[in-house]
Amino acid sequence: MGGNAILQRGQRGTTEEQLENIRGTAASIVTIIELGYRVVLTHGNGPQVGNILLQQEEARTIVPPSPLDVCGAQTQGQLGYLIQQSLDNELSHRGLRMPVVTVLTQVLVEAHDPAFRNPTKPIGPFYTEAKARRLMAQKGWAMREDSGRGWRRLVPSPKPLAIWEASIIRKLVEAGAVVISTAGGGIPVVRQADGRLQGVEAVIDKDLAAQILAHEVGADSLLILTDVQQVSLNYRLPDEVKLGRITVSQAKQYQKEGHFKAGSMGPKVEAAVRALEAGARCVIITALDQAVDALAGHTGTRVVPDDDA
Amino acid sequence: MGGNAILQRGQRGTTEEQLENIRGTAASIVTIIELGYRVVLTHGNGPQVGNILLQQEEARTIVPPSPLDVCGAQTQGQLGYLIQQSLDNELSHRGLRMPVVTVLTQVLVEAHDPAFRNPTKPIGPFYTEAKARRLMAQKGWAMREDSGRGWRRLVPSPKPLAIWEASIIRKLVEAGAVVISTAGGGIPVVRQADGRLQGVEAVIDKDLAAQILAHEVGADSLLILTDVQQVSLNYRLPDEVKLGRITVSQAKQYQKEGHFKAGSMGPKVEAAVRALEAGARCVIITALDQAVDALAGHTGTRVVPDDDA
Repeated sequence: MGGNAILQRGQRGTTEEQLENIRGTAASIVTIIELGYRVVLTHGNGPQVGNILLQQEEARTIVPPSPLDVCGAQTQGQLGYLIQQSLDNELSHRGLRMPVVTVLTQVLVEAHDPAFRNPTKPIGPFYTEAKARRLMAQKGWAMREDSGRGWRRLVPSPKPLAIWEASIIRKLVEAGAVVISTAGGGIPVVRQADGRLQGVEAVIDKDLAAQILAHEVGADSLLILTDVQQVSLNYRLPDEVKLGRITVSQAKQYQKEGHFKAGSMGPKVEAAVRALEAGARCVIITALDQAVDALAGHTGTRVVPDDDA
Repeated sequence: MGGNAILQRGQRGTTEEQLENIRGTAASIVTIIELGYRVVLTHGNGPQVGNILLQQEEARTIVPPSPLDVCGAQTQGQLGYLIQQSLDNELSHRGLRMPVVTVLTQVLVEAHDPAFRNPTKPIGPFYTEAKARRLMAQKGWAMREDSGRGWRRLVPSPKPLAIWEASIIRKLVEAGAVVISTAGGGIPVVRQADGRLQGVEAVIDKDLAAQILAHEVGADSLLILTDVQQVSLNYRLPDEVKLGRITVSQAKQYQKEGHFKAGSMGPKVEAAVRALEAGARCVIITALDQAVDALAGHTGTRVVPDDDA
């Protein structure tokens, strides 16, 4: 689920707003469960990490700020709690008894991932140029002017390699639990030479992490829920074409032709391609409130293996 | 584990400090695992929730503050991550392969618990009297002047009734995982008339929650790790007596005689009594760095059933 499943653009981010948004999402998910699916859920955390970074910034003289991996862990707790409770409530409202569990999730990335030499993901507060130059010198941050609104920190977005808690997540699904995990793309960790894990200040793309998660739990289908009902060619142009069903080869071709925006539909289509190449039978990209209809084949964009064409 | 397993008095609370403290604790826990114990771990979160409340306060005009249950969930993510990673690293350092999992945990309390009419637990920032009176009027907070340092919010400390995620935690232990759960006494929730869970602004005593957790996972032993090596009668008085082994009846008698301080040793001894009355064979109260020796019977205070006297 995209971040807007939890916090919509323009909302300030009160817990009431987030719970209200999540309630709608929980209803869709429980309907999917009622259809007989076993669900592993993962979701974005961008606005919530942004808020924690703002709070840390404002209080920095009295409370030492935490690094980004720890902020991510905080949001896994915060959002896992809200989502889990909403699912618990919706399940019991419909008379279903089923444990829901939030698993704190680390995701392994490669210490030598080229992304670490080229940070591209803007996060946190906007700063004046003077302040930004000071932070770059003091903390070694990469920063960039962002769309005329000020300077922002850039962090690396390395490729996810493995879900560290995958075996546990698999066991929980087998035991009949609804599992929430890998929030915000997971907490990025690298393995040091001595084998120890070490958190890194980076942000993993949540769609790519979802694909790895889907693969490691042996999911048949990957459902990517976002804010458009279908993937489009020529998005928002007069000749826009909405896609109903495409093969993995078509998806790759359209991707190559530049139809899908980096940081938006691009990683979703890339996640779809990788999922199918790794053995999934079906990836569906659709809007959050269309999930049930899309699973039934009435809407959404379905990406399928070439031999299902 | 008490909060000082993670953040010691006088420390500011950087992630480095907390990781350093946790590393020592993780070494003790892994030694306990090597002795053949299956471990479910729970820990305090007081200083970390305090820091989040301070950050929220400083940023309150730009980021809406979250209620206390959500702050607790944030610390379950934050601390679960740091503890889990340290345990992972210590286990792999000793050549042990064993999954470690942090389970977000809600704890059921009674909506009519008398504690809700009498908030007693001070949390968060200190305020001036004028500001405190404004907050009491605006938000309906209970507040009290605290040891000459300013006014603080008081929240209820209701009794824990049940660990909402107990069945999952049990399954994970049976599957061979080391489980971290019920941090900070758990996220307090009540069941509404329609059966739905609802978070409440309260703090559950972590020792009492640990006892409920121990009971619900069917633990034989409850190990309460704090900052003293043994429980004392006449604590810090010239006639102080350190206790090595006492029965549950003796513990109740000493508790009645007022030997154990509320909010400190009191709830630990109360948790010990309840655990034994609920069927545990042994409760050990000792210092964090004495856990292994105490399990071997060389130190600590061991509370046992009357028939083991």
